[in-house]
Amino acid sequence: MARVEKLVIVGVGLIGGSFALALKEAAAVGRVAGVGRSERNIRRALELKVIDAAGGLDRATLGDADLVLLAVPVGQMQAVMRAIGPLIGGKTVVTDAGSTKQDVVELARRELGKSLARFVPGHPIAGTEKNGADAAFAGLYRGRKVVLTPLKGTDPGALALVRSAWESCGARVFELAPREHDAVLAGVSHLPHVLAFALVDHVARHKDAKRLFSYAAGGFRDFTRIASSQPEMWRDICLANRKALLAEIDRYGGELDRVKRMLERGDGEALEALFAGARDARDRWLQDK
Amino acid sequence: MARVEKLVIVGVGLIGGSFALALKEAAAVGRVAGVGRSERNIRRALELKVIDAAGGLDRATLGDADLVLLAVPVGQMQAVMRAIGPLIGGKTVVTDAGSTKQDVVELARRELGKSLARFVPGHPIAGTEKNGADAAFAGLYRGRKVVLTPLKGTDPGALALVRSAWESCGARVFELAPREHDAVLAGVSHLPHVLAFALVDHVARHKDAKRLFSYAAGGFRDFTRIASSQPEMWRDICLANRKALLAEIDRYGGELDRVKRMLERGDGEALEALFAGARDARDRWLQDK
Repeated sequence: MARVEKLVIVGVGLIGGSFALALKEAAAVGRVAGVGRSERNIRRALELKVIDAAGGLDRATLGDADLVLLAVPVGQMQAVMRAIGPLIGGKTVVTDAGSTKQDVVELARRELGKSLARFVPGHPIAGTEKNGADAAFAGLYRGRKVVLTPLKGTDPGALALVRSAWESCGARVFELAPREHDAVLAGVSHLPHVLAFALVDHVARHKDAKRLFSYAAGGFRDFTRIASSQPEMWRDICLANRKALLAEIDRYGGELDRVKRMLERGDGEALEALFAGARDARDRWLQDK
Repeated sequence: MARVEKLVIVGVGLIGGSFALALKEAAAVGRVAGVGRSERNIRRALELKVIDAAGGLDRATLGDADLVLLAVPVGQMQAVMRAIGPLIGGKTVVTDAGSTKQDVVELARRELGKSLARFVPGHPIAGTEKNGADAAFAGLYRGRKVVLTPLKGTDPGALALVRSAWESCGARVFELAPREHDAVLAGVSHLPHVLAFALVDHVARHKDAKRLFSYAAGGFRDFTRIASSQPEMWRDICLANRKALLAEIDRYGGELDRVKRMLERGDGEALEALFAGARDARDRWLQDK
């Protein structure tokens, strides 16, 4: 297990904060400095001992860091990379936790200059609909998957360090190409989020919205849990991965049309087969997980 | 609190079984007879003391019943009503737990003859994706809503008995017209179920389905929980309420198209506004619940 002497977390929210807490719990980190836009959140992170010191996007904070985790919404990634590019030291490894990877890789190529070889793009597939340092907890990544999408020129030592850090958090680490990652996540994460946001909006726009909400129950609550996710973050994800997401929305629209035609022709057999197939596929998935 | 001396449950699954258990816990029932298609399930219901005796659709079981709950899938409702119509006693009150109401009312008008006045259509808005007597528990209805949709000619005493029984289960009882009920439930229950079944089917049909499932996480799990619901029951609900459901699917398709256009034109502001509006509406709903 590699130990990280100095860790810098840029964006001390659920994702960044939980990474710091998990590494602390595993005794896999020395000092943790936190950088963030919200003073209040950084103060909270200090109080909760998620971080040991507040830092900035400056040489004092970044110059001697062993590992920097960029855990900011994808929309802020460019500004952050541009700022840190000239500041990070010659041995500093940088990784990120962005939910999309092709766009982050593109930005890194543009902004990180000669540090690009020490940048390891990553995505921990974990989270809750909560955010901020208050939501962070050491167990968030236990048993969860983390996808790394290294580039051809990625330094093997940098890759090993990032892999080891995530493993110290209890995560299982996999590698995909950036494009593969984005296509997979469009289907099983980005599309469901869009569908959930859209359903709540659909009900809220109903002329009888108040009554509809008043009879919504547990199924609606679970289905829409992800619609309580952070709007800014999901705007950025959707825009960053819009090509793959649009393809998924189109395919899903075709799926809904199929169901509609079954309903229109009153085809109970086809409906039941579709429902049963879906239930079986989901149950198998739960077993295999 | 009215006490029911003899209760007959037709369909001793999650819904019917939990009704029996809740009334027993509240000491609001004397004997409970259970009627069902599956011998194994009825045996299990006896073992678990969900019911006290196994009965049939015959005069011995139904003739002296105070209350009969029909908790069978909507698709079996006609056969069950036709069977019980001539058998039930002159004071027996009948209610149901069907997820749709216009169709059940229609069937009752056709099948129940002069007992129609003692039929109180109902729908407990509660459930889990589990089914069978094994899944039943006394607390299922605590704090949940039950909608009754009485007809013009419904006997006030019958209505009062059914209301009281549900209140003994800890439920809050509301009244709606059958058509109102079906329109509301199409939006907040039937549509989300269809969307969840369709999403799992969508992923399962993907050429890269195995890999997609392998990266599906907690958001996907919660979003699709209701896709583990009973296919036969949901086939029946969808067919029974297909007019209202088709209207909801169409409206939802329009909603998805709006999101698609925002994505196509890269309109981050509109996306964020929609997501934030949905999150706020959901959070308000959770507070008001």
